[in-house]
Amino acid sequence: MQRPNRIEPATGKLGVLLVGMGAVATTTMAGVFLARRGLAPPIGSLTQLGTIRLGRRDERRMPRIQDFVALASLDDVVFGAWDIFPDDGYEAAKRAAVLEGHHLDAVRDELAAVKPMKGVFYQEYVPRLRGVHVKDDARTKLDAVERVREDIRRFKRESGAERVVAIWCGSTETFTAANGVHGSIEAFERGLAADDAAISATQIYAWAFLHERIPFANGAPNLGVDFAAAELLAKETQTPIAGKDFKTGQTLMKTVIAPGLKARMIGLRGWYSTNILGNRDGEVLDEPASFKTKEQSKLGVLDAILEPEQHPILYGDYHHKVRIDYYPPRGDAKEGWDNIDIAGWLGYPMQMKLNFLCRDSILAAPIVLDLALFLDWAQRCGYRGIQEWLGFYFKSPMAAPGLQPDHDLFVQLIKLKNTLRWTVGEDLITHLGHEYYD
Amino acid sequence: MQRPNRIEPATGKLGVLLVGMGAVATTTMAGVFLARRGLAPPIGSLTQLGTIRLGRRDERRMPRIQDFVALASLDDVVFGAWDIFPDDGYEAAKRAAVLEGHHLDAVRDELAAVKPMKGVFYQEYVPRLRGVHVKDDARTKLDAVERVREDIRRFKRESGAERVVAIWCGSTETFTAANGVHGSIEAFERGLAADDAAISATQIYAWAFLHERIPFANGAPNLGVDFAAAELLAKETQTPIAGKDFKTGQTLMKTVIAPGLKARMIGLRGWYSTNILGNRDGEVLDEPASFKTKEQSKLGVLDAILEPEQHPILYGDYHHKVRIDYYPPRGDAKEGWDNIDIAGWLGYPMQMKLNFLCRDSILAAPIVLDLALFLDWAQRCGYRGIQEWLGFYFKSPMAAPGLQPDHDLFVQLIKLKNTLRWTVGEDLITHLGHEYYD
Amino acid sequence: MQRPNRIEPATGKLGVLLVGMGAVATTTMAGVFLARRGLAPPIGSLTQLGTIRLGRRDERRMPRIQDFVALASLDDVVFGAWDIFPDDGYEAAKRAAVLEGHHLDAVRDELAAVKPMKGVFYQEYVPRLRGVHVKDDARTKLDAVERVREDIRRFKRESGAERVVAIWCGSTETFTAANGVHGSIEAFERGLAADDAAISATQIYAWAFLHERIPFANGAPNLGVDFAAAELLAKETQTPIAGKDFKTGQTLMKTVIAPGLKARMIGLRGWYSTNILGNRDGEVLDEPASFKTKEQSKLGVLDAILEPEQHPILYGDYHHKVRIDYYPPRGDAKEGWDNIDIAGWLGYPMQMKLNFLCRDSILAAPIVLDLALFLDWAQRCGYRGIQEWLGFYFKSPMAAPGLQPDHDLFVQLIKLKNTLRWTVGEDLITHLGHEYYD
Amino acid sequence: MQRPNRIEPATGKLGVLLVGMGAVATTTMAGVFLARRGLAPPIGSLTQLGTIRLGRRDERRMPRIQDFVALASLDDVVFGAWDIFPDDGYEAAKRAAVLEGHHLDAVRDELAAVKPMKGVFYQEYVPRLRGVHVKDDARTKLDAVERVREDIRRFKRESGAERVVAIWCGSTETFTAANGVHGSIEAFERGLAADDAAISATQIYAWAFLHERIPFANGAPNLGVDFAAAELLAKETQTPIAGKDFKTGQTLMKTVIAPGLKARMIGLRGWYSTNILGNRDGEVLDEPASFKTKEQSKLGVLDAILEPEQHPILYGDYHHKVRIDYYPPRGDAKEGWDNIDIAGWLGYPMQMKLNFLCRDSILAAPIVLDLALFLDWAQRCGYRGIQEWLGFYFKSPMAAPGLQPDHDLFVQLIKLKNTLRWTVGEDLITHLGHEYYD
Repeated sequence: MQRPNRIEPATGKLGVLLVGMGAVATTTMAGVFLARRGLAPPIGSLTQLGTIRLGRRDERRMPRIQDFVALASLDDVVFGAWDIFPDDGYEAAKRAAVLEGHHLDAVRDELAAVKPMKGVFYQEYVPRLRGVHVKDDARTKLDAVERVREDIRRFKRESGAERVVAIWCGSTETFTAANGVHGSIEAFERGLAADDAAISATQIYAWAFLHERIPFANGAPNLGVDFAAAELLAKETQTPIAGKDFKTGQTLMKTVIAPGLKARMIGLRGWYSTNILGNRDGEVLDEPASFKTKEQSKLGVLDAILEPEQHPILYGDYHHKVRIDYYPPRGDAKEGWDNIDIAGWLGYPMQMKLNFLCRDSILAAPIVLDLALFLDWAQRCGYRGIQEWLGFYFKSPMAAPGLQPDHDLFVQLIKLKNTLRWTVGEDLITHLGHEYYD
Repeated sequence: MQRPNRIEPATGKLGVLLVGMGAVATTTMAGVFLARRGLAPPIGSLTQLGTIRLGRRDERRMPRIQDFVALASLDDVVFGAWDIFPDDGYEAAKRAAVLEGHHLDAVRDELAAVKPMKGVFYQEYVPRLRGVHVKDDARTKLDAVERVREDIRRFKRESGAERVVAIWCGSTETFTAANGVHGSIEAFERGLAADDAAISATQIYAWAFLHERIPFANGAPNLGVDFAAAELLAKETQTPIAGKDFKTGQTLMKTVIAPGLKARMIGLRGWYSTNILGNRDGEVLDEPASFKTKEQSKLGVLDAILEPEQHPILYGDYHHKVRIDYYPPRGDAKEGWDNIDIAGWLGYPMQMKLNFLCRDSILAAPIVLDLALFLDWAQRCGYRGIQEWLGFYFKSPMAAPGLQPDHDLFVQLIKLKNTLRWTVGEDLITHLGHEYYD
Repeated sequence: MQRPNRIEPATGKLGVLLVGMGAVATTTMAGVFLARRGLAPPIGSLTQLGTIRLGRRDERRMPRIQDFVALASLDDVVFGAWDIFPDDGYEAAKRAAVLEGHHLDAVRDELAAVKPMKGVFYQEYVPRLRGVHVKDDARTKLDAVERVREDIRRFKRESGAERVVAIWCGSTETFTAANGVHGSIEAFERGLAADDAAISATQIYAWAFLHERIPFANGAPNLGVDFAAAELLAKETQTPIAGKDFKTGQTLMKTVIAPGLKARMIGLRGWYSTNILGNRDGEVLDEPASFKTKEQSKLGVLDAILEPEQHPILYGDYHHKVRIDYYPPRGDAKEGWDNIDIAGWLGYPMQMKLNFLCRDSILAAPIVLDLALFLDWAQRCGYRGIQEWLGFYFKSPMAAPGLQPDHDLFVQLIKLKNTLRWTVGEDLITHLGHEYYD
Repeated sequence: MQRPNRIEPATGKLGVLLVGMGAVATTTMAGVFLARRGLAPPIGSLTQLGTIRLGRRDERRMPRIQDFVALASLDDVVFGAWDIFPDDGYEAAKRAAVLEGHHLDAVRDELAAVKPMKGVFYQEYVPRLRGVHVKDDARTKLDAVERVREDIRRFKRESGAERVVAIWCGSTETFTAANGVHGSIEAFERGLAADDAAISATQIYAWAFLHERIPFANGAPNLGVDFAAAELLAKETQTPIAGKDFKTGQTLMKTVIAPGLKARMIGLRGWYSTNILGNRDGEVLDEPASFKTKEQSKLGVLDAILEPEQHPILYGDYHHKVRIDYYPPRGDAKEGWDNIDIAGWLGYPMQMKLNFLCRDSILAAPIVLDLALFLDWAQRCGYRGIQEWLGFYFKSPMAAPGLQPDHDLFVQLIKLKNTLRWTVGEDLITHLGHEYYD
């Protein structure tokens, strides 16, 4: 990463393309519409509410992040979306049942104006859903990429957006690992043409975005843009990418509490996590093959934070279990219950229970917004390929090949903020502070 | 703070003087005896189990902290203690009922060898206890200081300790604020001679330690060494000090979770905390005047972390309540229940409940050990006065006058580790990591 | 109690007078209006949804209770109320913020038509509230009784009610115990005339109701109708009475779980209960003298159920603590957290934690309705004085002098249902069931 | 059931045969040995600690149950057992790790004296275990029955027991439903001879017990004695039987809380239950086919209590989910977490969360003892076949064909106690109590 000589200004409109227009996407859009008219606060968004400390502690320099790095304004955001159901933004938002009626009514027209483009859909990747608004006339996967690229160009024309970013807000796909077809740009292009079964819808969108130089973040645990071919193409086309799987709810708290235990060298003997959720996400994850994709993403964070090989006495043998259960009475509200068995001084056992009554889309929406604005900024800085500093937002953060990504939320936050400081030329924060004492 | 040209080596024995030989002190001592014979692991102790990352992430340099900064070895530690009851270390440990019989039996002789010196005790500061092993022949508070200093010198002679540190492990005293008598060294000396009612037992011990150049940490929320006169004397006598109120249990978790919420700009509407505990600590805190001291210490952390004035939308109006209830069935096991009302995107409410079944002394003992070893190291580095980097261990961390101390556990940990790195001359860690990307 | 020869039919309108028109009263009224138009189900009400098993298990006779004993119909209910604020029923309901806007709007006119009569109010009994719509021109407490009686008679005239019942839905008063003035009808009448300080507003209303032969239930823990003079007057005037303190939320669950533990002879070592609530009730109970009244009512249930003197090994020494904390973020939603320390086989400890996210008025409203209909029925049966079988609804159930009331919810339910069966002449249920086996 | 003219006295020794000598059986035996020497209280046992109210409430007649119906004394109990591992009672108890060392040591000799007889074992019914101490020389299942009968007769001879009862304390078997072979005595006998695959070990023991006229209770959810052939044989041989699946932990609480909700006509929208347990039971249930057996037993209780067909508004459409996860850090301690979504007045939602930190064997052991003593008493009363009044102890209580068994713990308790009263000729309790009022 090179510190930019100049950062392109955020002039004109910023197009934000959302793949999947369900609860998360509609909650994001409605929120942006409400927030820019001052009707509701964009809580949860670092780009809208965050500040950044600069210089010595006693200087009290704390500008807003959006001012400090000149992010695009909410007023300049225009949305587009794809979905496998034809409902417009207002109907989809009502069906999602996340926001209250008075909120949806206040921005009804703006929501209703977002008509989804037909989605790329492969049944075998989402066994629990039946797509009815899909690009079923694409002859090959390569052709599907082409159709998406046409959609993008049309959106740019029609919306007048000068710059575009894209975020995957769609469903979890069944588990699949990268194989040969994902290994190089050429192999992937051949696979597209040959309708390779290992290529999923997420990858098709990603490939289209990269060719169009549209920064892209993957909010699901799907193999999407985290494979060699995509990383190479991103570099080649100078496009920033980030992923994967929005870090919300239970896993978010895991990456808060586990670093807390480790900070104090408190041992871990077991961590049992169960989730109940009742929205379409829960329905999709009720399918074991889809759950496996999610489970992999959720299980990885503890080992990465605790480093059992470094700390065998503390973390060498803990039992980690993650459950997700579809539970319709919850609706979009999601609930996690964690039982954490810890060990203290001399090995004496203690326990912690965390019950988190959260809301999936309420936690995810500000992440979508932040990623859109930060990816746009990254592109204007000339950054390309994996943006590790955006790992703050993901359950399975991407990092350079061979590098273990950080999962500790606090390390991720420092990395993000020091990246902003460094880009702009401000001193990095180290929290040393010896200068306050003689 | 000046980076030391040379750090004195940790040769010879290190005396550790504990004020108050109840559950915390006996659990600490028994643990040190067990750990150094390999009978139980010193979990929870950064000085015993912690590692520190040095250099680039891919260098994988992760030495143990105790090797990196050459801390005193557990083998060289000798204990002394004061208490207001005459039980020896073994009897006191049995009464405390924290450790299992087989653990106490394994180190019975070493524990029994610690006979408490008579304590300084003022009834009005601890209404719920009746001291029976006290320095009741001290004519004035100045005289009491002198008796403590004699105790210290005798302990050094008899134990053969080359260096000594001291930690307050005693009870919470009734609430008292600093006043004129605490404003200068001279005023305090006059107050001691005049038996000023505003001078508590904690302050008397602190004063003796400072005159004897013994680094001192205050584990209770008492006004102990956090007043102008003590800070001045610490500088004058080149003595490191730290405090106050060990950060364990519920407040520890508060300084883990609150930074997590803030990292993501999640709003807070209310935080209700209740504690039930059944040991002597709980009994003492059943007294409203004693509870007030503790409450002040516990309530402060949220505002300091959340900075409502910086973030009025998020933290401008939250309701914070802390309860402690004496509940004998719990014994030394302490239990916290927290209800946290949070606000997400557009202000939508969510809730978090944390139930922490912890053990007071099991969490506090490794802190006592770490503070003893780090304070000794600080003195060998030539550091004096407030050691802000040890704020990691305290509910009410001390900082230079005019400086707001950090309460965020993760900021505290970086400060601590970067202080170690800086002292030894290693690069500070900033988590920027742009060098891994082209 | 004599089985009635004949039960008067429920002809004409039934007036229901509510003392205090806050969250509970308005939620009750709105619910009755909604339910009788089929707009929302009267869940929680035994009189509306309950069935009663008759005869042998295999007969499958299970009529609805309201049909079995011919209760008054919701269609015949008319409401009246007193309050110390002048808001009409709609305004009061909106302020209470219990029900959603669409529910209130649907019955707005009916609610708005209920204009509160001026309340009897004595500041010293409710220190946290300031009454502004009060009978401040009553010269003596005797005069206040007279004013209430006039209100009642006017209500009957204006509403056309043929029968009237009354329920206290007002605030908790400061703690007061019965004394000489409460010992006989004459003493009480003298006390009224002399403005005796020991006579509270609740008692004044009760006295007026009894003289008017209006059955009365006391929903608060106040000394209201549970004293000798009132019990004597109730018999003399042939008026049924019941009380006191609606059993909702945490205490309701206590009288469910404690019988469960006792059924299995599981021991109890400690029960710690904390409540957070944010409505006017919480505000009133933030006053220690008011809390004491509530605490007495809440603490009593465990001993009464567990009978420590009968079971010293199991229940001879448990620690019971009840906390209520005013916590504005909760609004009318109330939350309880219980930690229950139990002992099993050979004394081995186990724990139970119950977190109840409930809603005060939602739980109380169906009780108000049931009491109104059952009290009316009791009067039509010729029952008078204490109706112990209605103890099912109360935290501090009333029983004949010298008799320990049952607190076990399941015993209370059997008592209630067997009272209905016995009154009508059906066989009592004993659950013996030997007849199904040869 | 006929009220007995005479109840045989409990003279001589009572043999108690336990099938499976794991955690539950050894905890039961150790407890009986400890309790009869006064070393630990037999908490959880109705036969040891329970009292029974007789007559009017103000008579205060409350004899102990064991005196009231003249149960066998603990002093007369002698144990025998079968197991598929050869460890003696002391070794097995140590391995189970339920009781503390000092408790096991105090009764070491008595425990060690119990040497298990070789078990009947069919791998396909318990896939996760490997039996090593089994009757592998039995040629057919009929032969296996014969071997068990020989074991029983030898036990009687050697122990000197005058009467014998038997309790299944073994593992859960894979799910199997009754089929033709279970339909009549003759069919079953033919199936035994033909080694019918549908006959499990539990059934073999049961058949042996019935032929030997030994009352038998089935503590697991296995198809054991709850099929037509066994019920017929039990009547024919005049043998009492009971089952199945000890009601402990989460399901116990379900049958406490669900009746509480129903008593008040509170609606249910969802009940999510998860269990974590770490003992052999958990390991066995990690096998899906075994879990299915348990799941059936656990799921049934709610519908049976709530009667959705009677109460469609309240219980017509609730979501019930039960999870069991093997979680080794818990050991024998079992933990349940329940989330209960309820509906109150007008359908407004509320929630309840129950976290039960229980101990499997500690809850089960007193049930084993009670069943042993009550079954012996039933036989002495001349009762035979299904003892529905013992349904109090089971998750899947047995009842006469065509009769829906009661699951409500409180109905079960009344049934049990009224059965005792009726047998002895005392008045049944109805809780009517009209006689206390004039």
